[in-house]
Amino acid sequence: MKRYILRDQKSIRANCGVFGIYNHPQAAIMAYYGLHALQHRGQESAGIVTSEYLPEKRKYHFNIHKDFGLTLNIFNAKILTEVLKGNSAIAHNRYSTAGASDRRSNIQPFKVVYKDGNLALSHNGNLTNANTLRLKLQKEGTIFQTTSDSEIILHLIARSRKKNIINKLKEVFNIIKGSYSVCILTDDALIAARDPFGIRPLSFGKLGNSYLFASETSSFDIIEAEYIREVEPGEIILIDEEVVKTGKEKSFRFANAKEYKHCIFEYIYFSRPDSIIFNEKVDKVRRKIGSNLAVEKPPPKQDRTDNKRIIVMNVPDSSNTATIGYVSEVSKTRKDVKHEIGLIRSHYVGRTFIQPGQDIREIRLKTKFSIIRGVLEGRRVIIVDDSIVRGNTLKLLVKLIKKANPKEIHLRITSPPIISPCFYGMDFPSKEELIAYRHKGNVEEIRKELDVDSLEYLSIDKLLESVPYSTKKTGYCTACFTCKYPIPIDDIEGNSKEKFED
Amino acid sequence: MKRYILRDQKSIRANCGVFGIYNHPQAAIMAYYGLHALQHRGQESAGIVTSEYLPEKRKYHFNIHKDFGLTLNIFNAKILTEVLKGNSAIAHNRYSTAGASDRRSNIQPFKVVYKDGNLALSHNGNLTNANTLRLKLQKEGTIFQTTSDSEIILHLIARSRKKNIINKLKEVFNIIKGSYSVCILTDDALIAARDPFGIRPLSFGKLGNSYLFASETSSFDIIEAEYIREVEPGEIILIDEEVVKTGKEKSFRFANAKEYKHCIFEYIYFSRPDSIIFNEKVDKVRRKIGSNLAVEKPPPKQDRTDNKRIIVMNVPDSSNTATIGYVSEVSKTRKDVKHEIGLIRSHYVGRTFIQPGQDIREIRLKTKFSIIRGVLEGRRVIIVDDSIVRGNTLKLLVKLIKKANPKEIHLRITSPPIISPCFYGMDFPSKEELIAYRHKGNVEEIRKELDVDSLEYLSIDKLLESVPYSTKKTGYCTACFTCKYPIPIDDIEGNSKEKFED
Amino acid sequence: MKRYILRDQKSIRANCGVFGIYNHPQAAIMAYYGLHALQHRGQESAGIVTSEYLPEKRKYHFNIHKDFGLTLNIFNAKILTEVLKGNSAIAHNRYSTAGASDRRSNIQPFKVVYKDGNLALSHNGNLTNANTLRLKLQKEGTIFQTTSDSEIILHLIARSRKKNIINKLKEVFNIIKGSYSVCILTDDALIAARDPFGIRPLSFGKLGNSYLFASETSSFDIIEAEYIREVEPGEIILIDEEVVKTGKEKSFRFANAKEYKHCIFEYIYFSRPDSIIFNEKVDKVRRKIGSNLAVEKPPPKQDRTDNKRIIVMNVPDSSNTATIGYVSEVSKTRKDVKHEIGLIRSHYVGRTFIQPGQDIREIRLKTKFSIIRGVLEGRRVIIVDDSIVRGNTLKLLVKLIKKANPKEIHLRITSPPIISPCFYGMDFPSKEELIAYRHKGNVEEIRKELDVDSLEYLSIDKLLESVPYSTKKTGYCTACFTCKYPIPIDDIEGNSKEKFED
Amino acid sequence: MKRYILRDQKSIRANCGVFGIYNHPQAAIMAYYGLHALQHRGQESAGIVTSEYLPEKRKYHFNIHKDFGLTLNIFNAKILTEVLKGNSAIAHNRYSTAGASDRRSNIQPFKVVYKDGNLALSHNGNLTNANTLRLKLQKEGTIFQTTSDSEIILHLIARSRKKNIINKLKEVFNIIKGSYSVCILTDDALIAARDPFGIRPLSFGKLGNSYLFASETSSFDIIEAEYIREVEPGEIILIDEEVVKTGKEKSFRFANAKEYKHCIFEYIYFSRPDSIIFNEKVDKVRRKIGSNLAVEKPPPKQDRTDNKRIIVMNVPDSSNTATIGYVSEVSKTRKDVKHEIGLIRSHYVGRTFIQPGQDIREIRLKTKFSIIRGVLEGRRVIIVDDSIVRGNTLKLLVKLIKKANPKEIHLRITSPPIISPCFYGMDFPSKEELIAYRHKGNVEEIRKELDVDSLEYLSIDKLLESVPYSTKKTGYCTACFTCKYPIPIDDIEGNSKEKFED
Repeated sequence: MKRYILRDQKSIRANCGVFGIYNHPQAAIMAYYGLHALQHRGQESAGIVTSEYLPEKRKYHFNIHKDFGLTLNIFNAKILTEVLKGNSAIAHNRYSTAGASDRRSNIQPFKVVYKDGNLALSHNGNLTNANTLRLKLQKEGTIFQTTSDSEIILHLIARSRKKNIINKLKEVFNIIKGSYSVCILTDDALIAARDPFGIRPLSFGKLGNSYLFASETSSFDIIEAEYIREVEPGEIILIDEEVVKTGKEKSFRFANAKEYKHCIFEYIYFSRPDSIIFNEKVDKVRRKIGSNLAVEKPPPKQDRTDNKRIIVMNVPDSSNTATIGYVSEVSKTRKDVKHEIGLIRSHYVGRTFIQPGQDIREIRLKTKFSIIRGVLEGRRVIIVDDSIVRGNTLKLLVKLIKKANPKEIHLRITSPPIISPCFYGMDFPSKEELIAYRHKGNVEEIRKELDVDSLEYLSIDKLLESVPYSTKKTGYCTACFTCKYPIPIDDIEGNSKEKFED
Repeated sequence: MKRYILRDQKSIRANCGVFGIYNHPQAAIMAYYGLHALQHRGQESAGIVTSEYLPEKRKYHFNIHKDFGLTLNIFNAKILTEVLKGNSAIAHNRYSTAGASDRRSNIQPFKVVYKDGNLALSHNGNLTNANTLRLKLQKEGTIFQTTSDSEIILHLIARSRKKNIINKLKEVFNIIKGSYSVCILTDDALIAARDPFGIRPLSFGKLGNSYLFASETSSFDIIEAEYIREVEPGEIILIDEEVVKTGKEKSFRFANAKEYKHCIFEYIYFSRPDSIIFNEKVDKVRRKIGSNLAVEKPPPKQDRTDNKRIIVMNVPDSSNTATIGYVSEVSKTRKDVKHEIGLIRSHYVGRTFIQPGQDIREIRLKTKFSIIRGVLEGRRVIIVDDSIVRGNTLKLLVKLIKKANPKEIHLRITSPPIISPCFYGMDFPSKEELIAYRHKGNVEEIRKELDVDSLEYLSIDKLLESVPYSTKKTGYCTACFTCKYPIPIDDIEGNSKEKFED
Repeated sequence: MKRYILRDQKSIRANCGVFGIYNHPQAAIMAYYGLHALQHRGQESAGIVTSEYLPEKRKYHFNIHKDFGLTLNIFNAKILTEVLKGNSAIAHNRYSTAGASDRRSNIQPFKVVYKDGNLALSHNGNLTNANTLRLKLQKEGTIFQTTSDSEIILHLIARSRKKNIINKLKEVFNIIKGSYSVCILTDDALIAARDPFGIRPLSFGKLGNSYLFASETSSFDIIEAEYIREVEPGEIILIDEEVVKTGKEKSFRFANAKEYKHCIFEYIYFSRPDSIIFNEKVDKVRRKIGSNLAVEKPPPKQDRTDNKRIIVMNVPDSSNTATIGYVSEVSKTRKDVKHEIGLIRSHYVGRTFIQPGQDIREIRLKTKFSIIRGVLEGRRVIIVDDSIVRGNTLKLLVKLIKKANPKEIHLRITSPPIISPCFYGMDFPSKEELIAYRHKGNVEEIRKELDVDSLEYLSIDKLLESVPYSTKKTGYCTACFTCKYPIPIDDIEGNSKEKFED
Repeated sequence: MKRYILRDQKSIRANCGVFGIYNHPQAAIMAYYGLHALQHRGQESAGIVTSEYLPEKRKYHFNIHKDFGLTLNIFNAKILTEVLKGNSAIAHNRYSTAGASDRRSNIQPFKVVYKDGNLALSHNGNLTNANTLRLKLQKEGTIFQTTSDSEIILHLIARSRKKNIINKLKEVFNIIKGSYSVCILTDDALIAARDPFGIRPLSFGKLGNSYLFASETSSFDIIEAEYIREVEPGEIILIDEEVVKTGKEKSFRFANAKEYKHCIFEYIYFSRPDSIIFNEKVDKVRRKIGSNLAVEKPPPKQDRTDNKRIIVMNVPDSSNTATIGYVSEVSKTRKDVKHEIGLIRSHYVGRTFIQPGQDIREIRLKTKFSIIRGVLEGRRVIIVDDSIVRGNTLKLLVKLIKKANPKEIHLRITSPPIISPCFYGMDFPSKEELIAYRHKGNVEEIRKELDVDSLEYLSIDKLLESVPYSTKKTGYCTACFTCKYPIPIDDIEGNSKEKFED
């Protein structure tokens, strides 16, 4: 889960997407569409494992296909129907990087054989005691074939002396720490589980007599499956033949947190607006964040000498929804502000070639975004964006927008300054690369570096006011804004990366 | 130029994009970016021809690379720098289709040798007397290696007895009829020309000491070239070494129309919003069309029993700009209407796999668009779209949106009903497939077929009121809405297609 | 037909292979196997054109698929059955080169439309007045889309005013000069023709009710077709529906040479040993050449001090057959000589990577050939090879063999020294690169350069004594050994290459 | 090591090739050429692992690249120089199969991390107690990520409590049974070892200051390395920095067999003729086998009514050398026999497409071999071949040869009938598929099935008389001919395959 990579042009080190389905005659095709709807969670690689019963051998066979690339390039009809046979499947999307044929072994799902049969795993999240566990296991004679912390989970399951898979998992989940939303496929069951704090999302759904799990409900919608509920933090759900017959999933508790610690960044940026996560629609939360930003950090005052309306523009497509919320709120009280499309996002972003003296990132940005000169020229412009990580892309975007000669540029950010890394799966760059950390949170300095006329962030209080509290235990992890880490980080920072990255 | 193909999910048979550059040390890389910014005009194939002077042979060599696929997949650094050497280049994007390895010969630019040296051509448009000319040329002993009407232009140039290329071209342009925006590369010059009616756009620009032509100015912006002016309808512009020295392009007139007949559909749908065509910014025109639609075809009246605001949604990304115009106008007078994002467009549209009993187009649409249930549920919804061709996609989209249980769905279209084919390069499907033709323009019947609560088209008068008249001669071709064809169609309809399509 | 290229590791600029079939339900699959059996005649590219009757349109459609690469990589089941439909086909193999995406247009068969319908051409050979004809045609307004001399044939057919295809062809064949074995596909016929001197081979065969033409009979054997006879020099054979009914091919004469001038190099090296060409089995001729070499240029005398037998070794696989002939003849009189395998040829010749200070050709040779040390060590070794062109490969081979410490190395060549280029399709390198030309035919000097103990060539007289004279008119072109060119070379040497190679 | 696969057209389930190099600045390029020269030992997949010292991290990094396909297609300059950096490397070739993306995890070398650092393994051979060990390890909590028996070796090394790698290996080699020639790369050493019976070959060589190991010496010749000696059966050789300095390899003994049991089939068919294995040149042994066959099973008697000589033909290229030996011996006493080339082997064997009613294997054979009709027609023909496994290919070959109408066909086989499977790495098909097993060794019945005039096998005694006994301990495994298995097979036959093949 650990490598540092540019996702798209946002310097957020990405997350992953997991999916599982039980009892569907076209499990692999469902998994394909499910992955498609989770593509935004990881563009480096994707994989599907299916469980196929071989009647003549009276045993299960696990089929696998995984590769680097986008879901749509990795799978084709032949692979989905002839290779990936079987009624159950788990799948995984991983974040994007270049090259790295070396890391092929890290592509998930992992598929192994252990004493009780076949076992496959898809994991979204990050273990915070991976380093410790790894050293311990190696000492005991374990070999590691990947550099992924997810492999540890498999070793621990195989080494557990507990009698059945649920007891094994309960044992394992009391050993590992950190964030994990997992789908596990065994010879006769599909299992999903979520860490005690519910850091990453994981949903449970149904499609006819099939049962499904997915990181986001967008996976359910694309195949018209029904959303039932979240997998609860600290809960294991097991689906087997019996569940299909009774219609009642088997639920087990392995932990009981006082307060959940959902990743608030999933609402700010990462999840798709059409998904439900943490019991609420993302787009609704995102619009609320946008309108609260408008309340807290309104547009600059009217300029008496300028009778043209202030333009509020979104950065397509990441801040579309929040911008609607912002403008909608502002329009209630002010007439001098209007929403406009100032940037066009290309559907064909591709290779770029440097010329001497040019900045490759600048060119890449121009192949992705183009400005609508007429909209921006001579105007006071407010750009609503979701977050600032390194600031590099935003700096280039500002530079690009300035070519249209706007009168002023004002930045409004729908989250507080990011000052600290995430150890639970959202792989930001190192502290030293975070623009807000570099400027010790001094917003005026950041504004200068970004070269804009004003810059305002949403406050942490207002952010927490914008998100839902649908259960008694609902709470959020805001460590990247506040440095308050809800789960202890056993591994000394950076250590695990240096030690096991090969 | 002629095949019928689905472009994206819009059943408009597409157009092409042309590009030319003279006197740039990295002509091919410039052409690559230029094509990138014209990708929306054709996704089937792309090609670049460069002119390289070989001092040891004292002659020019034309390098070429072209293939099926998107620009970003066809070219790489090695091809652009090692194969496509030379200081001048022309390039071409062609519309998208499946398979058709048979048609490889039709990929442009075309490159030939004739009595005066090398000759290469990129053509956007459609000749209306291609059939007649082709038969005549064949009778005279000419062989045709492609099924493209553009090949005719090359034969006519080679067969002209006029002394220089300009005189040859004047002769040829008085023989061919129809629409043509062309870039031509000869051993010592880059030439651009546009048909007398200026049906397709063609712009002229400058970058340092380099001269450029492109279908749309988006090609200039991406490489930071300066837009000078349009190539005039009926004008030939020639760039050679002398022009580089004097800084003054050589302009020639071969025709003088009373009134130009720009393709109004370029403004409605085809061109990029950030481009300038026909002397005006596309996004500005498109917003004007949107606001005029609001004036002429406003949202349904308020429902006293429903105090929730009416939602206006765009179809991303084709109607984004027009929707902004629509909402902006409506907001002036009504408080019960607001803009919302009800559809998310995926950045990863890919392969889809049919299951028995499923509609492949429906699945494909779902991999492209996802609905924001919370925005639409229980609401009165207005969808602003740019045009309806066959109606198939819109029908599916309506079906998809209905899954969110909106209270009502109202369609507002920023163009009149399409009732007749285009013979000038915008390849709509056959008459019989046009939904408005099938229903003889009866809007109520179309509404029923689309299964919406109301349907309103912009009128032709209001459309013509929305577009700019920047010169005395400005005029528009509206044949697809009105059946009034400004240029006679020599070829009996369909004949040329049947005869020469192999 | 003209580019200079290394074929395999032999510096002979290669030839091509042509194939045609009429009236077979799986014409494309037959053509595929036919090309496979002609693969040795050209490894650069391959193509197939099929003629498919479309009953609903009541016309013929020509399908085409061609690409760079080996036959087996270019075609697959889908292309052969779904793209290349139709009952008749022509096909072509072209010589091997690197890169050259520029030359894609030169890949044959060529397919065009002309006044009488579709027309496709496969050509093996080389026109000697191509330059003259090309300039003339250009002057008359013709454009050239390829740099191939074969395109000229198509233009001349299209421009002929004669009434039917046979008369047109008769006219064209009286205009063009040089060597040509061609297969032509029209809407209703398959036509084969051969130049008046019969320089390149062309065979005529039958398979059930299907008729076939191929450069070599190896194409017939692979699909178990029956060899009927050669297409005669100066003959046109036309196959149409009527021929299928009557069972009698239509034969036409357009020329009547006093003496044929078959390329003797086809027997020495180029054709496959299992083929029949020029009315005789190649392997039989090649063995005869080998045994005549033994008679004329026997092994060195026995060395009284060395009681080990002299080793005769072949260069696999090109001199296998001739070596058998040589050893067989020698064994009649001498007991001190035996055949051994001293070189192994790898079936997997591939990419090679240079290290500083290394000779890439040497490495490549080593990936292709490996020596059997034990066979050669301390022995007097005779290497039988078919010809020496540049001598580079042989020099490296001698160097390689010396690593096994043979006592002596003696070279015996089954052809005379090559001192002059071929203008009829066998593209040797330029005169200056020919080792025998460089040494003005001085065999002792060549021996020194090759660094062997003795070197002997077969004499021209003995060579001519080895080849068959099956008809009254049989004769051979030996220009590469004698400089006597049977057909005048209109184009000044090299001129056409410089002028038209782009 | 275990899957059953057609190798080329011979139904022998193949072997593998291993390679290792220490202390060479271009270790990966050397490994590439080494693999190239071992390509015949496995065509399914290939891989290279290199060890690179990262000074800034003060640790070793293992780079890896492996894939399905031929060596020449898997690697390119970029991968060899930019990915596979480092001064030491091990490599592996694996047998050929179709598809099986599922088995990607089985491609060697394997690379893992264990308590002492990095570890990589290349294994040629087959463990006979793999099943037992696997179950035991699983019971102890081990997970298996591949279905290869080679993975067991890695687990055992990691779990050993012995202090250094040599002691660990000694322990492991006393646990595993069966055949193994292995190359192992650790952070600071390259290690090679061979099972106590020396079943598979493994050579030790030197190139400047670099040390090498390879399955066959052909790998040394291609890079001009010097052959030093065999890795002894029961020996471990370790190369580290100290060895480079002292010039003396570190040798360790872990077993001492009374008699070695080299696989005699390596001499008959599998190894390359230019290699030295088991202390002798393969081609020399193979010629001896051929001449002994001539002594024991001479050609049929002369036919007084037929004055044409009997033809002895080889099956290219597998029986080339043995045929030379056979003919050479026969020629000493008989004048009525001569060697001829009756079959040509194509260098371009490729895809084949079935037509209804055709036998795909027959077509494939015809694309590979073509007969020289003139050589065989009306003749008494002796085919010398190395072995008969299933007999299918030979049956087709006889059928093909009969098309040339030979008078008689006589088969002479340079090995005894194969009646029993191999459990030591030479994967023949199942017993029931072996033609000699099916006919219970009845040669007359086999002759009838093959439809030839006579069939003679070399006897086991004469075979054993043909092979070298260069050391006191030299001995051979002839289990496939005699059912006498020198190493006990713990795993019940087929069990391991069924159990662990996924």
